[in-house]
Amino acid sequence: MFRSPIRFCRVCATAVEYRVPDDGDTRVRAVCPSCGTIHYENPLNVVGTVAYWGPQGGQVLLCRRNIEPRWGKWTLPAGFLELGETTEQGAVRETQEEAGAEIALEGLFTLLNVARAGQVHIYYRARLLSDRFAPGHETLEARLFHEHEIPWDDLAFRTVQETLRHYFEDRRRGHFGVHTGDITW
Amino acid sequence: MFRSPIRFCRVCATAVEYRVPDDGDTRVRAVCPSCGTIHYENPLNVVGTVAYWGPQGGQVLLCRRNIEPRWGKWTLPAGFLELGETTEQGAVRETQEEAGAEIALEGLFTLLNVARAGQVHIYYRARLLSDRFAPGHETLEARLFHEHEIPWDDLAFRTVQETLRHYFEDRRRGHFGVHTGDITW
Repeated sequence: MFRSPIRFCRVCATAVEYRVPDDGDTRVRAVCPSCGTIHYENPLNVVGTVAYWGPQGGQVLLCRRNIEPRWGKWTLPAGFLELGETTEQGAVRETQEEAGAEIALEGLFTLLNVARAGQVHIYYRARLLSDRFAPGHETLEARLFHEHEIPWDDLAFRTVQETLRHYFEDRRRGHFGVHTGDITW
Repeated sequence: MFRSPIRFCRVCATAVEYRVPDDGDTRVRAVCPSCGTIHYENPLNVVGTVAYWGPQGGQVLLCRRNIEPRWGKWTLPAGFLELGETTEQGAVRETQEEAGAEIALEGLFTLLNVARAGQVHIYYRARLLSDRFAPGHETLEARLFHEHEIPWDDLAFRTVQETLRHYFEDRRRGHFGVHTGDITW
């Protein structure tokens, strides 16, 4: 989600100034010289799932992107958290929208910072209730992958790579934890 | 952080229209009829710490708020995550700004949704490196509390209450987990 720079006040349409507000703040913000509105911009949450199929959880659901960025690359179902929903609700919604998949959430799995993009990516483990999918308009194809089939070189995002890596590592050792980290490479 | 409704386009100052964009979206957004900019609004992250003192972690750091909302109430050090920083960096910064406290982070502790407020609150456990504090301008007083001293009826936010409750429960059973939940009451 590209965000255009703020040029005009959302409240009164006056051209904003970039300066540190007078309220004890320490950061430069877009401030309206007319009505005084301070326009904050903050990181966004991306929420999604690593959804598995089968009693041993040997297969996971990936979606091939039909949108930019990374058109044609494979991703875990995920998208921007919306106002009014919880991170869990957002993760379920995105899995439904992108893959048409029905799931039962099983817990927080990864929380990965992508500070250079102003994003926090939050993934939940989820059990697939069916192996029949119905890709939405943002998805070219939704299918299950065994570990040896994962298209590691054609994944859309590093947070997807990290989350899949943790999933198969945890699966091998027989215990799923909660993993945090920063994507800096 | 109260957000004023969007009335004018941030890019070209035209009055926005509220409608579902034509790009396959399903939600009503503020859309500019002139330049086409879609103005998304999404939940904000609040990041903070439950910072303890002493080898048994028997005391935790609380700050008495010198700002609205909840002026005069007690809170864990926390605030809005800023662009360009990770959740960990934000939690450390807020602890420094509000309490002047030096800490070492010890891991993710709670992730609590406050969907009605459009917020996700993320707390980290942290070890205090000193018991000397230097409250910032947003804080009336910063001090350590044993469990029996916690001002449960004068806490600023339910996420603070939940995080403290989990902290002392986990401390009693001798193991700190990662806790998730939704604040709906």
